Amino acid sequence: MSSSRTSNFQWSELVPEQSCATYGDAAYELIENLYPLCRSITGEGVRKTLDIISSEIELEITHIPTGTKVFDWTIPKEWKIRSAYIEDMSGNRLVDFKDSNLHVVSYSLPVDKVVTRDELDKHLHSIPEHPDWIPYRTSYYNETWGFCVTHKQRQLLTDNEYRVFIDSDLIEGHLTYGELYIKGKSSDEFLIFTHICHPSLCNDNLSGIAIATQLAKVLSKSDLNHSYRFVFAPATIGSVSWMSQNTQLFDNIKAGLVVAVAGDSGNLTYKLCRNDDSYTDKIVKNILATREDDYNIIEFSPYGYDERQFSSPGPNLPIGSLMRTPNGCYPEYHTSADNLNFVKPEYLADTISAYLDAINVFDNDTKFNNLEPFGEPQLGKRGLYRKTGGLQDIEKSILAKLWVLNLSDTYNSLLDISIRANMDFRLIQAAAEELYFAGLLENTT
Amino acid sequence: MSSSRTSNFQWSELVPEQSCATYGDAAYELIENLYPLCRSITGEGVRKTLDIISSEIELEITHIPTGTKVFDWTIPKEWKIRSAYIEDMSGNRLVDFKDSNLHVVSYSLPVDKVVTRDELDKHLHSIPEHPDWIPYRTSYYNETWGFCVTHKQRQLLTDNEYRVFIDSDLIEGHLTYGELYIKGKSSDEFLIFTHICHPSLCNDNLSGIAIATQLAKVLSKSDLNHSYRFVFAPATIGSVSWMSQNTQLFDNIKAGLVVAVAGDSGNLTYKLCRNDDSYTDKIVKNILATREDDYNIIEFSPYGYDERQFSSPGPNLPIGSLMRTPNGCYPEYHTSADNLNFVKPEYLADTISAYLDAINVFDNDTKFNNLEPFGEPQLGKRGLYRKTGGLQDIEKSILAKLWVLNLSDTYNSLLDISIRANMDFRLIQAAAEELYFAGLLENTT
Amino acid sequence: MSSSRTSNFQWSELVPEQSCATYGDAAYELIENLYPLCRSITGEGVRKTLDIISSEIELEITHIPTGTKVFDWTIPKEWKIRSAYIEDMSGNRLVDFKDSNLHVVSYSLPVDKVVTRDELDKHLHSIPEHPDWIPYRTSYYNETWGFCVTHKQRQLLTDNEYRVFIDSDLIEGHLTYGELYIKGKSSDEFLIFTHICHPSLCNDNLSGIAIATQLAKVLSKSDLNHSYRFVFAPATIGSVSWMSQNTQLFDNIKAGLVVAVAGDSGNLTYKLCRNDDSYTDKIVKNILATREDDYNIIEFSPYGYDERQFSSPGPNLPIGSLMRTPNGCYPEYHTSADNLNFVKPEYLADTISAYLDAINVFDNDTKFNNLEPFGEPQLGKRGLYRKTGGLQDIEKSILAKLWVLNLSDTYNSLLDISIRANMDFRLIQAAAEELYFAGLLENTT
Repeated sequence: MSSSRTSNFQWSELVPEQSCATYGDAAYELIENLYPLCRSITGEGVRKTLDIISSEIELEITHIPTGTKVFDWTIPKEWKIRSAYIEDMSGNRLVDFKDSNLHVVSYSLPVDKVVTRDELDKHLHSIPEHPDWIPYRTSYYNETWGFCVTHKQRQLLTDNEYRVFIDSDLIEGHLTYGELYIKGKSSDEFLIFTHICHPSLCNDNLSGIAIATQLAKVLSKSDLNHSYRFVFAPATIGSVSWMSQNTQLFDNIKAGLVVAVAGDSGNLTYKLCRNDDSYTDKIVKNILATREDDYNIIEFSPYGYDERQFSSPGPNLPIGSLMRTPNGCYPEYHTSADNLNFVKPEYLADTISAYLDAINVFDNDTKFNNLEPFGEPQLGKRGLYRKTGGLQDIEKSILAKLWVLNLSDTYNSLLDISIRANMDFRLIQAAAEELYFAGLLENTT
Repeated sequence: MSSSRTSNFQWSELVPEQSCATYGDAAYELIENLYPLCRSITGEGVRKTLDIISSEIELEITHIPTGTKVFDWTIPKEWKIRSAYIEDMSGNRLVDFKDSNLHVVSYSLPVDKVVTRDELDKHLHSIPEHPDWIPYRTSYYNETWGFCVTHKQRQLLTDNEYRVFIDSDLIEGHLTYGELYIKGKSSDEFLIFTHICHPSLCNDNLSGIAIATQLAKVLSKSDLNHSYRFVFAPATIGSVSWMSQNTQLFDNIKAGLVVAVAGDSGNLTYKLCRNDDSYTDKIVKNILATREDDYNIIEFSPYGYDERQFSSPGPNLPIGSLMRTPNGCYPEYHTSADNLNFVKPEYLADTISAYLDAINVFDNDTKFNNLEPFGEPQLGKRGLYRKTGGLQDIEKSILAKLWVLNLSDTYNSLLDISIRANMDFRLIQAAAEELYFAGLLENTT
Repeated sequence: MSSSRTSNFQWSELVPEQSCATYGDAAYELIENLYPLCRSITGEGVRKTLDIISSEIELEITHIPTGTKVFDWTIPKEWKIRSAYIEDMSGNRLVDFKDSNLHVVSYSLPVDKVVTRDELDKHLHSIPEHPDWIPYRTSYYNETWGFCVTHKQRQLLTDNEYRVFIDSDLIEGHLTYGELYIKGKSSDEFLIFTHICHPSLCNDNLSGIAIATQLAKVLSKSDLNHSYRFVFAPATIGSVSWMSQNTQLFDNIKAGLVVAVAGDSGNLTYKLCRNDDSYTDKIVKNILATREDDYNIIEFSPYGYDERQFSSPGPNLPIGSLMRTPNGCYPEYHTSADNLNFVKPEYLADTISAYLDAINVFDNDTKFNNLEPFGEPQLGKRGLYRKTGGLQDIEKSILAKLWVLNLSDTYNSLLDISIRANMDFRLIQAAAEELYFAGLLENTT
């Protein structure tokens, strides 16, 4: 699949020095640090978030000024929010931005006035079915203001008038994103994208930020056959902006994943790419099929996260999404209940492990040619077979060798063999290695 | 799919002025008018039938003389039947053609003689399992005579001798069929064929005749992108005759349906075309999948109605059959119980509605090209998006727009998009229209 | 599919003069004759086996000397075994090769010494779960000695010392295989391979030997369109040796089957070929689908019998395996319980019948062209249709004719038609014959 891989075959070694559990713990710790910040698609929250990530990996930061055209979009003004509250006429603060940065609709205009209860009600958002949760709402491109409150809070608002106060600005500023490129032997690259625009919501999407950061740490320390790119950017406008600056890279991107909603207790879920022959689909379906736990595969649709931007007909990039419970499929989604209790280090670790499986396949998928293709070569004389015939079981490692020999005809890569044999890629990889060093295979990629 | 569609995109408007229910009622009324006639593959019954249809739509009538070669077949003599009965030796009429035109085997030779009970029995047809029903039998190409009777009638025939009388003729005459061509902007055409040779049988096939007539009425009043042809002809010899006169049209026929057994209470059933890449299959499977009711898809087989003639290897036309309960799959099939109670206006209306769905797809399927293909275009600034983000549901109309944008890459037609999105074609059509008028799409067909 | 078939179409007639039941009885009788011999991959047992087969069919015998290179393998020394036993120190024979030739591990080196119980134990094989059965073990390429015993025998070995005696030799000799080529009108050939290296084991693989022999007898007496080759050789090294001598034949081999484990009471099982477009798969799936009994289809894997050698990437031959219960899937596999009671004449007969079905398809699959392709030809005037229309059932033979007419467009062979119609190939064949002699088809292969 790669045009530029060296013919001197060499595995990369991605198994992290530390265990995935350790990376899961580190990811959770990063989530704890990022949780208090009030992020939006622009502004201080995003910049502080990128600063904190930069303390773990070497990010290159891009700032695009307000008003810049990015394809069909224009970079909006930057939103500043200092404080916000609802007071009764006696000055009691009933709702306060200090308590939760979800309380203010993102991109709310400044306001400071007394309003009737009816007028206020038009600017309130709550969830009757979950009366203790605060919903998360945005209004980036429609100028208005609003408060998000628990339904219990809303039901207490029975006075005739209230004072509403939002100290915010929409100013000329920048859209900001961070990027890390890890160069391997070939320029074929794997893109990992995560959105950084959500405020205090853990699964969506501090989980994606934290997992991408840990993966970048592992890969930064590895000697790699291929290249990897991590992009931390606001959703939609962020991926569109990144694409508008990087069209020359599209041809290099052979696979990619959007990482989001990846720290909850649900099974791993893979959302397929737009085109059904994508290399990403082939890799991820393979690694999921050979992992122990149940998983879900869902069809591509042009709704979801930034894979929908990468999958638009212009770039048409092979980018799927590997997550846990999909957006909108759990009640805590986009509410204050998506908090530090909703994600757990062990689920983050499991997701990291699946990503490393996929990256291992991407980095080590290569083709071999069987040098003794007429019948099976005599494995026994090379010490590659068990010694006594007639047993009812055949060990998996021997079967893996037989599959590699049978299918190494220059048409099938190790991934193809792993898929057809329905055996773990690493087992196929190990079998190929043994056969290669026994002189039975040549590398042809 | 069309080579000749205008690039000035314009929808046809097929939604009938009247509702499908009204068309179902009109179809049922036509069935009532046609029911008493004694049809066969030739003769007065067929001509009177075409006359009655002509009072609703403008039919062009073709007469082919007896003895004419039509491919491998020869137009047979015309059959005239005036009266027929079985009498006992005392002159009591026990079976009389006046009571039911099913009583005489179609194409029976004239006979006037006294026969023994044993001799008579060889010329009788009845259904022991349904002793009150008269079966329907024909003998077009094998010269003989016979009576079809209820099994109860047959069991009363215990005398030693009976007088049998059939006043019929086989004369030099014609085979007759009717045709209506409705010209649209392109010469690509959709063929609807129905057989008109069955006597007093309502589902098979007055239902087909009545539905085709109502569809022709709707289309005659519409401004169409493509062309439509309705053929009302006897089964087998009729479709073979029509093909023999119209081979020059074969290339224009892009889709088509044989309509028969289409007024009973069963679910809609689609019989696939001979070739599995047919445009007709694609259309009909799509409209059935997005309608509310259950339906059946059955494989092509070279047995059934005239689709088997159109699907022979020479013409090899993409013609399936959209019906309700298939021929031979209900006990009333080809018996006197297939009467005015067996079909209902509401089932006729439902079938008409499905045909109009299919015709709408055929007439309006076109391709667009997304003019802002890098990422999603900003729908909000064009008033095409909802205003507050973060809701858990996305409205269907927005999703339809996202699908159209995502797949309008010159490869996919609206039908392709409807299939992939699993959304009603009319919803996709409406989304495309909004996007087109917002300047986000160009028409490329 | 054949390039060399004569255009003068002619069926071969494979229905054996005798019934399959008779061939099943004959196969069982041959198993009884071959059962006592001690076979291995080389030596007297194999030669005597080929002698006995030669009394039924004309085998050509090939001897390849020890030390000859056959692709990656080298012909091993020939193994001679005269006697072997375990005695207690009082001279009581506790285990004796005379009682069962499974008692000695195949290719055991000579030994004659007193050993401790612990030392002896390292050289013993038994099956705790089946304490009355003797396992079958080999050690062709690892020089050692050993005994296979019932677990009951093993548990009685409680003395401190025993005398072990094996009178065997490993000498310069030959590997031997037998072959029968039956030439038909074309050089396209069907290969049937069976392994002959197992000692007293009936299902694996005296059943394969006996079935191949009976099939060869039937085909030797037939006038055939295509050619057939039967190879009786040791497993693995035997098929590799045969391939090394016959690479020039590979292009002729259009289909083939390894016959083994084919006489037990299980359903027929077909193991698919390596490449999923193989002609063998198409044939065998078709004949299994139209036989009455249940059956299993299993995926190709590079483990099993000699199909794995033929399916290696060099020869890449379209060779599957049609068996009953697969190797390793019944407890008696490779034990003394795979004896004369485990296989039965009726199961052998059923397997023979399935092979003859497959061979009939291979030999008679041809293409026709419908000479009256516009509509159905008028079968009635040729006496090929029933006389009275309107019956609810259509006879299978008429339906077969309609399918043949509909699909005889030079693209579809009779096998393709049988598959699409889901009708027995012989019924399609009979329909084609009637239509051909009525002048409605021409043969185009």
